[in-house]
Amino acid sequence: MRYPNGSRKRTANTSTSPPSSKKDYSNRGMTLEEDINAANMYYVARNLASVHKKPTPVQIVNVDYPKRSAAVIKEAYFKQASTTDYNGVYKGYHVDFEAKETRNKTSFPLSNIHEHQVTHMEQVTNHCGLSFIIIRFSPLEETYLLESKYVLDFWKSKEKGGRKSIPHAFIKENGYHIPFHFQARVDYLKALDKVLAKLEEDEHV
Amino acid sequence: MRYPNGSRKRTANTSTSPPSSKKDYSNRGMTLEEDINAANMYYVARNLASVHKKPTPVQIVNVDYPKRSAAVIKEAYFKQASTTDYNGVYKGYHVDFEAKETRNKTSFPLSNIHEHQVTHMEQVTNHCGLSFIIIRFSPLEETYLLESKYVLDFWKSKEKGGRKSIPHAFIKENGYHIPFHFQARVDYLKALDKVLAKLEEDEHV
Repeated sequence: MRYPNGSRKRTANTSTSPPSSKKDYSNRGMTLEEDINAANMYYVARNLASVHKKPTPVQIVNVDYPKRSAAVIKEAYFKQASTTDYNGVYKGYHVDFEAKETRNKTSFPLSNIHEHQVTHMEQVTNHCGLSFIIIRFSPLEETYLLESKYVLDFWKSKEKGGRKSIPHAFIKENGYHIPFHFQARVDYLKALDKVLAKLEEDEHV
Repeated sequence: MRYPNGSRKRTANTSTSPPSSKKDYSNRGMTLEEDINAANMYYVARNLASVHKKPTPVQIVNVDYPKRSAAVIKEAYFKQASTTDYNGVYKGYHVDFEAKETRNKTSFPLSNIHEHQVTHMEQVTNHCGLSFIIIRFSPLEETYLLESKYVLDFWKSKEKGGRKSIPHAFIKENGYHIPFHFQARVDYLKALDKVLAKLEEDEHV
């Protein structure tokens, strides 16, 4: 994570690890998903928003009901999600997003997103929800919020034979950098406030 | 299901069952959950709203990864949901609800709802989402939409030693009857439109 003053913070659990700039991210031990879950808990605790990760969809085939103890699922399979992973409500807005990490430095490959997720993003946008993706470029330690309308543009262009990824420069230009916050970690509401300010500005033009 | 003209319709899969008014509901073979899932599919197909049921939360303990075939979950447990079951977006509004059936005829027992769900309803309401429950009185074949603010009132009263259920008469008076729609089945958006009309009316007073 980059800080405004250029310094880097480490979380408590990295203090025993040897210093290594290459290992910074893995030493932190927090995936983007864990960071977002931490942010959501922080937002709920501070009464700022109510956003939650949806449970992993599972097809349950066989369940054992032992006497005097909890039911045990003995056979189940992972199902493909038909929506995005996170949604909730913020300032009266419906918020819906997917979070993706890439090891690339120069672009975000569209292969990270599934077609049904793109369809879902389009539907949420149609119904005036705030739809976006949170993209982390792990090697750069940079995280951005990019509105779905851009993702949809690139997706449609890809289907017509266009490029298969969104350039880092495009995301940096059109997305919103998500600042690191010690408690919220990926403080995406800060970026979302900028999206909302832009929307209001556009309404008054 | 009651129809405006007082007649009753049967779905195709009931035609082979012997006629019996007592068995009507079970003959239809559709639980409230199945009806709502059908409604949500209909709404998405008609581009009216984007509302989905959240997957059942499962704690996965042991997964087998056989060669050349899909991963098999060998041990998992049901977790208690920390939110309500359904949410999505309609006309720019964040929609969040829980669906409950009761075999009672005169009241809806509050024991059908968990404390963390009540907390969640309160949070969604605070952030200006449309929070409600869909209640079906199975023996009466009546389904209602009741805004969470009423549920919260009864819940708080219960905690102070008040009654442990919401009377059917109260729900009929303050909730919105959900009409049956052949394709949408529980056509709750119709009831939600009345909630929205009331909200707009209140804003202009």
